[in-house]
Amino acid sequence: MPNTIIDPPVLEPGTLRVIPIGGLGEIGRNMTCFEIDGKILIVDCGVLFPEEHQPGVDLILPDFTSIKDRLDDIVGVVLTHGHEDHIGAVPYLLKLRKDIPLIGSGLTLALIEAKLKEHRIVPYTLPVKEGQIEALGPFDLEFVAVNHSIPDALAVFIDTDAGTVLVTGDFKMDQLPLDGRLTDLRAFARLGEEGVDLFLVDSTNADVPGFTPLERSIGPVLDQVIAKSERRVIVASFSSHVHRVQQVLDAAHAHGRRVAFLGRSMVRNMGIAADLGYLNVPEGLLIDYKKAKDLPEDKIVYMSTGSQGEPMAVLSRMANLDHAIEPGPGDTVILASSLIPGNENAVYRVIDGLTKLGANVVHKGNAKVHVSGHAAAGELLYCYNILQPKNVLPVHGEYRHLVANQKLAIDSGVPAQNTFIGEDGIVIDLKDGVAKVVGQLDVGLVYVDGSTVGEITDADLKDRRILAEEGFISVIVVVDSKTGHIISGPEVHAKGFAEDDKVFADIKPKVAKALAEAAENGVRDTHALSQVIRRTVGRWVNTSFRRRPMIVPLVIEA
Amino acid sequence: MPNTIIDPPVLEPGTLRVIPIGGLGEIGRNMTCFEIDGKILIVDCGVLFPEEHQPGVDLILPDFTSIKDRLDDIVGVVLTHGHEDHIGAVPYLLKLRKDIPLIGSGLTLALIEAKLKEHRIVPYTLPVKEGQIEALGPFDLEFVAVNHSIPDALAVFIDTDAGTVLVTGDFKMDQLPLDGRLTDLRAFARLGEEGVDLFLVDSTNADVPGFTPLERSIGPVLDQVIAKSERRVIVASFSSHVHRVQQVLDAAHAHGRRVAFLGRSMVRNMGIAADLGYLNVPEGLLIDYKKAKDLPEDKIVYMSTGSQGEPMAVLSRMANLDHAIEPGPGDTVILASSLIPGNENAVYRVIDGLTKLGANVVHKGNAKVHVSGHAAAGELLYCYNILQPKNVLPVHGEYRHLVANQKLAIDSGVPAQNTFIGEDGIVIDLKDGVAKVVGQLDVGLVYVDGSTVGEITDADLKDRRILAEEGFISVIVVVDSKTGHIISGPEVHAKGFAEDDKVFADIKPKVAKALAEAAENGVRDTHALSQVIRRTVGRWVNTSFRRRPMIVPLVIEA
Repeated sequence: MPNTIIDPPVLEPGTLRVIPIGGLGEIGRNMTCFEIDGKILIVDCGVLFPEEHQPGVDLILPDFTSIKDRLDDIVGVVLTHGHEDHIGAVPYLLKLRKDIPLIGSGLTLALIEAKLKEHRIVPYTLPVKEGQIEALGPFDLEFVAVNHSIPDALAVFIDTDAGTVLVTGDFKMDQLPLDGRLTDLRAFARLGEEGVDLFLVDSTNADVPGFTPLERSIGPVLDQVIAKSERRVIVASFSSHVHRVQQVLDAAHAHGRRVAFLGRSMVRNMGIAADLGYLNVPEGLLIDYKKAKDLPEDKIVYMSTGSQGEPMAVLSRMANLDHAIEPGPGDTVILASSLIPGNENAVYRVIDGLTKLGANVVHKGNAKVHVSGHAAAGELLYCYNILQPKNVLPVHGEYRHLVANQKLAIDSGVPAQNTFIGEDGIVIDLKDGVAKVVGQLDVGLVYVDGSTVGEITDADLKDRRILAEEGFISVIVVVDSKTGHIISGPEVHAKGFAEDDKVFADIKPKVAKALAEAAENGVRDTHALSQVIRRTVGRWVNTSFRRRPMIVPLVIEA
Repeated sequence: MPNTIIDPPVLEPGTLRVIPIGGLGEIGRNMTCFEIDGKILIVDCGVLFPEEHQPGVDLILPDFTSIKDRLDDIVGVVLTHGHEDHIGAVPYLLKLRKDIPLIGSGLTLALIEAKLKEHRIVPYTLPVKEGQIEALGPFDLEFVAVNHSIPDALAVFIDTDAGTVLVTGDFKMDQLPLDGRLTDLRAFARLGEEGVDLFLVDSTNADVPGFTPLERSIGPVLDQVIAKSERRVIVASFSSHVHRVQQVLDAAHAHGRRVAFLGRSMVRNMGIAADLGYLNVPEGLLIDYKKAKDLPEDKIVYMSTGSQGEPMAVLSRMANLDHAIEPGPGDTVILASSLIPGNENAVYRVIDGLTKLGANVVHKGNAKVHVSGHAAAGELLYCYNILQPKNVLPVHGEYRHLVANQKLAIDSGVPAQNTFIGEDGIVIDLKDGVAKVVGQLDVGLVYVDGSTVGEITDADLKDRRILAEEGFISVIVVVDSKTGHIISGPEVHAKGFAEDDKVFADIKPKVAKALAEAAENGVRDTHALSQVIRRTVGRWVNTSFRRRPMIVPLVIEA
């Protein structure tokens, strides 16, 4: 059900146009463009990770089509926090224009700078803090502290001549956060009293009833598991989850264990977090994993990547005995992480592999070792009641999440007609507190595969899926261009089709016969002869095997 | 980590050999062989459904290698219940010997007979009931009622000269089952007192703490949702879950709605269940779905397949507006079903699609509309304590489930050395109450793809995965066999690689040059020339695009 494309009207001076080009109807590639009086402000620029029906795709980017001729009008990109789904596409945007200013908190900018370094880009940055006010062209910005599963996340309040917008970014409302940095409901209250004309609000957990448990509720569980462990402990989590890692460090420290970081992104991010003061590392706690081998087994905790079963990450490699650290009986592995839908089989394979090696595997299925980073329905209601926004656009979520969030807005008193459910590319104009949907852009999925961006199309993915399901059979013949007689072949090759090429003994004479008949009927065109091959082989393979491999006929004239 | 293959010793007379050839280390293709004094009894013969790393595979069968030369020694196949993972491979076994007797309850046999009809096989059957005792060669069998997510499930007690075995099949211990048919703990107690030498026990939920809720707890939820629905109600569940469907019928009936079954297997299975008296259908309740359109929208419940997001099933087709019934605003869709790991993305796509059409979607994530069919840890402990088996072999589970079940056995007092964790093909001999692991067979995955069985190999699947991730590039040249000079080509074709063949303009002269150089150096062999092409194209594509498509070079001599 593709959206009907509706060209928005020319933007009048003094009207604010809001276009979320990513993150609506999907969890990822969050990016929203705000335009007024010829200037564009972008909030977030993230990637989406592919699903199983997008094989071979590394990343999916937001579609920059609507801004790529407007690059010089962009006054800056506000990054609400340092997760990939909010910053991951920045390198691809900066490849279009290197000096677009990046605005964000200290940790967020440090993480994007590290990522840009890999792309050999040194960005132009403007670090900001909660409470800070900055003007970027026609946009007056105020940054508000929010709590999330990464430190230093910010919401952004955008004040323009046409009205005001509050963008939460990802957030939750942990009331006893580890770092004491609460989602600033006092600021929300003040902004609400001043008037929020449009509220863009995180929907990820809008269909989860109640409240997200406290991050600090995990600490005692980690402590208890580590206390009971007689040999090595390996903890896997997201490499940006500083507070989760902090709790692991604290539990290790309490039990006289040292900690070694494993995995490139874990080492890098925790280095950044410690340098900037977000991670508090007791003196002498850390040890290089190569040296950790010399410690007694009950004196070490490995803090690792790979909690989603990613095949090349440390935890999977450990489970496959393809890593210097080989788990064994008596070892404890803790997956202190969520289980992202689609990753279940991969994660369970890792758990089974580790269990088979004798390790005791603790995960969110059997212990309370994970809480979400997103506000559940109960928290969102607090938010709506404190803010009392005039208009609401649920963002960051698949369709059902957006609808659940809309319902919460309506339940809390926002008039239904002032709540908007949209998909990527929806165009909302705001003026004098009135928000209206005025268009729908044609926004596509931009696939990154290797070093190519946007070259792989949905048609290629369809071919890949057919190849995956059925393999292919290629049939090559060399024919005399004048007589149409076969000079060489048919040669038949197949991949992913059958173990044994003997099955093709059957079909070669059939192809030869069909081509001879076609030649007799005067068919010379190689395309027409290819179709003869395709039909002959297709019919045979369907009748004989009830299968439909891709058939690749090749007729060469000589 | 493949198991070390250990040939078991020759089986001595009077010793019972137990070989589970499927269902250990996996959820599915359950099948166990019992042999004594030259005769073989089989319990269950199911299929396993493929995961995403097995693209294009329809089904996975148990490996019949160890019995295919012993077919005449098989005295029968006991089918514990009618689920696919316990009966689905029977047609493939009967293709090897048609008159192997099938033993099972009324519903189980009716379901397998319907399936065999599609394969044009009329089986030789022996219907049995709980409490019934049958002798099959050297095996004295007693059937015991167990409760599961399909009616008429049986455990089987196997009494031989070498000792006794109790096989639970899939079961749970719902203490208020809808049909009043309890898992027969009195029989378990009696058999336990007589002595169970080896206990093969369902592990599916062994790592779930506590107790599975009552099936009847779902009824009031369904009732409430249907009561509140103002327009059409569509319920999706498994097509064999008679009691779940019964509760839907009852709730529909209570609210003056009629019910139409949707989906081939739903119509077929519920027909069988009603005919045999397992499903109680109030007079005049059912209506053909084509006629249901004429009813007022608040007078109908559709009972459908597709609860796992299967793309060709009714619910997915509805979500894609590819079905005669098109859900819309005000309609309610209930997924009264589990979410099998690996299906999450597909199921959420369906939920999002239905939500987008305006339907209110109720599922186990937001309402208590599903309970499991398997005994959780608390129930398994009851079982162990009532039975007090001498030896325990956890079955039906992935590795972590088997280990969790073993722990429960040990906690309840079974000596650790009498509990066995094995994988498919483990060989356990039993004599005089002593069970020992004596071997490990080489048991493979047998893939069904279309009408082919066992032809697709793991190497083919690896090729398919490469094709899926990267696509392929084929390069064809026709060379003069004497000079090695190119007569025609190189022609380059690709699938799943890039939208535009223009990218290959670059590589054709490179290939031509590399081949000319090889020819100059006297290379004539087509295989060697193919390698030249593979290297040249492989290096180019890796350097230019950072990708690794399958490269299929073809050198034809003319």
